[in-house]
Amino acid sequence: MSLTIVGTMAFDAIETPFAKTEKTIGGSATYCAYSAGKFINDINQVSIVGYDFPEDVLHELNEQGVKTEGVKKISDKKSFFWSGKYHMDMNTRDTLVTDLNVLADFDPVIPDFYKSSEYLLLGNLSPNIQKSVIEQFDTRPKLIVLDTMNFWMETALEDLKDVLTMTDVLVVNDSEARQLSGEYSLVKAARKILQMGPKFLVIKKGEHGALLFNQDEVFFAPALPLEEVFDPTGAGDSFAGGFIGYIAKTDDISFENMKTAVIMGSVVASFCVEKLGTQKLREITKTEVNKRLQQFISLCSFNYSLE
Amino acid sequence: MSLTIVGTMAFDAIETPFAKTEKTIGGSATYCAYSAGKFINDINQVSIVGYDFPEDVLHELNEQGVKTEGVKKISDKKSFFWSGKYHMDMNTRDTLVTDLNVLADFDPVIPDFYKSSEYLLLGNLSPNIQKSVIEQFDTRPKLIVLDTMNFWMETALEDLKDVLTMTDVLVVNDSEARQLSGEYSLVKAARKILQMGPKFLVIKKGEHGALLFNQDEVFFAPALPLEEVFDPTGAGDSFAGGFIGYIAKTDDISFENMKTAVIMGSVVASFCVEKLGTQKLREITKTEVNKRLQQFISLCSFNYSLE
Repeated sequence: MSLTIVGTMAFDAIETPFAKTEKTIGGSATYCAYSAGKFINDINQVSIVGYDFPEDVLHELNEQGVKTEGVKKISDKKSFFWSGKYHMDMNTRDTLVTDLNVLADFDPVIPDFYKSSEYLLLGNLSPNIQKSVIEQFDTRPKLIVLDTMNFWMETALEDLKDVLTMTDVLVVNDSEARQLSGEYSLVKAARKILQMGPKFLVIKKGEHGALLFNQDEVFFAPALPLEEVFDPTGAGDSFAGGFIGYIAKTDDISFENMKTAVIMGSVVASFCVEKLGTQKLREITKTEVNKRLQQFISLCSFNYSLE
Repeated sequence: MSLTIVGTMAFDAIETPFAKTEKTIGGSATYCAYSAGKFINDINQVSIVGYDFPEDVLHELNEQGVKTEGVKKISDKKSFFWSGKYHMDMNTRDTLVTDLNVLADFDPVIPDFYKSSEYLLLGNLSPNIQKSVIEQFDTRPKLIVLDTMNFWMETALEDLKDVLTMTDVLVVNDSEARQLSGEYSLVKAARKILQMGPKFLVIKKGEHGALLFNQDEVFFAPALPLEEVFDPTGAGDSFAGGFIGYIAKTDDISFENMKTAVIMGSVVASFCVEKLGTQKLREITKTEVNKRLQQFISLCSFNYSLE
């Protein structure tokens, strides 16, 4: 099956207690593509970059089956730039710089041959852009997964609620789920958010794992206890990419299969944080992914007998 | 098998965002006994209470197979009193009052017929008291589980380290594990703590579940996503009681069986927080415990196929 990914391709400057870089390749769509690429090799990338974005990154993605006809290049502007600094707990960070650059004019045009994709991943962007992408598809994708953030809840809540009614799966973190729902209990938050449109909700809890909800059920995926979290940047995007990448590969949108997809997203995310930026994602092989999946399985397996 | 529990039996005043009480039955040994009692009915209680501690609580415990010959009653002093207030996140709390009362003189004398217990749970007390209990046993128990807290790390670290060398399983929460080890990563923290003596380490993460470590392996038990956490008081003690209660019942101290015991501890703790104080623990039946165990199992179960 084919997957269309819409999001940013950018440069990041990152500082964590353990690592620092002035300039590395980043962007939600970049992380998503590398991650989904662990499961499928038919990916349609939609993004916008400046004259300064390296060709070889696009070529590397092309070689992995990522089509970049939907990646618009602006010859007289710089690529989107984000700079952030993480606190010791690695779950919180301060954004130091956000230079929109080309992103200010981002109005994605979906190439015709993308429009038959069965799966669509809308990375964290303005809800209006996310909506315009959905509306460009000839036939509605089988599954639309949407990522967003607190910024859009504060500045474009009505637009966000609008696009949520067109969405199948919303992926947010725990504080975003609480903000969007106004509920502290994640169980209550999930119930409220599922009334806003999505049939499924994933709540990411960082080092504490992730929860998958539908109307009646909940599934919990642990995070692998890691010796060192080197750089959390892109962990959420890697999760989303691995999640929908596995669903697209298996072409099964049942809740049962989504549970496994949440585990696969967690597997890929657990690699992402081990090195700076996208480095680890670019290195890992299918064999390593399967090996780590086994670790996740044994992490939570136990024997029991009821009486 | 028989289990000896040493800890406090007390009165608590508790305030949470959802509940408030001026005086309810509490104490680590009380929660532990009610919880372990869901799995075994041969429990030896060791504690100290004042003239004001209600007889009917002791009788209720007696009827459930808890022997109270080891519970010393001081006729001219009040029982230990603790008062705390929880923050919105329910993971952090402020201690408002700590009246030691009878606890100031607590020097437990283990009744002879207790001394053949195969299992020993040392609730959160001064490391010296914990050590003196171990030394009173004729034959060393099969498994010694020890609970402690940051207070003892700050005021009696050397004594704590001493009793840790006599302990099989240490049960602490994540911040205590970080404080004791000086490591932020829980994986690194576990490695350091296991070098201090215990063969097994349980790290409780509240609403985020619990981790079980031995030298080479790690197991993760989720917490059940609850609609409402009414009162977290005693959740940790309930966990410890359910954990060792299940091990004593199955009389199996293998890491494999301990995994299931961690789940059982989580099951009992998930009930504890649903009502104020010990109320819920006193109500639940074996059937409810088994039903919730099934919820834990399905919460984390997923299908997968490797290639």
